[in-house]
Amino acid sequence: VSDAPPLTGILETVLYCTSANEDATRAFYRDVLGLPLTGDGFSHRVGGRRDVLLLFNADEAIKQDNPPPHGPTGPVHVCFQTTPDNYDAWKRRITDAGVAITSEITTWRDGLRSFYFDDPAGNVLEIADGDMWPP
Amino acid sequence: VSDAPPLTGILETVLYCTSANEDATRAFYRDVLGLPLTGDGFSHRVGGRRDVLLLFNADEAIKQDNPPPHGPTGPVHVCFQTTPDNYDAWKRRITDAGVAITSEITTWRDGLRSFYFDDPAGNVLEIADGDMWPP
Repeated sequence: VSDAPPLTGILETVLYCTSANEDATRAFYRDVLGLPLTGDGFSHRVGGRRDVLLLFNADEAIKQDNPPPHGPTGPVHVCFQTTPDNYDAWKRRITDAGVAITSEITTWRDGLRSFYFDDPAGNVLEIADGDMWPP
Repeated sequence: VSDAPPLTGILETVLYCTSANEDATRAFYRDVLGLPLTGDGFSHRVGGRRDVLLLFNADEAIKQDNPPPHGPTGPVHVCFQTTPDNYDAWKRRITDAGVAITSEITTWRDGLRSFYFDDPAGNVLEIADGDMWPP
């Protein structure tokens, strides 16, 4: 296979909720994670970059025709990044919102820290205080 | 709720395969999408940015204890971004690899284009020639 043309990044990262928890899940991203809604009400810009987080109702997305149907059952994992000086503030914010921190690890790379928690749809979220992946 | 501390971006975007299609799925990301493996063999850097794409075997990830278990059943959606001048080359590359293009759309924003195709695990991938989301 010849060299692939460049992919300049991941534009859309997607998480899923269901009709039963959609309102609570959308409120969680808006109010707890503080991610501003973009125009159509179901996408969020994350950070100063152009990352887009989409939240789909999997009960609906699996029934659509075009774009193609998608929508899994069960928890998807996404990791957000923050800065070391904001890491403890994020832990407090999640705990103060009544959300349990399910795990915390010190990663294998440079002692970076991250903690895990669930969104109301059951997705497994992580906030890391740096990029633990090799360049 | 007080103002949220900054999230500087999405560090890890995750897709899932199963034991039945794991080898084919990993080969697809490496050989067709041309995403270079990072150290541990299951993560890919995308573009010149620090985006990380992880591919988990959902059959295994749902059984782990720490980090917390995750692993959905069914197709997850992720959109990659390329540049307008590389868009047609990507369509050719996907078709030449024997992968069907399932849909193509012109988005509501600035006439940007994107097309859809499946990975061997059934995830619904998209490559867009620009960022159609409002800033």
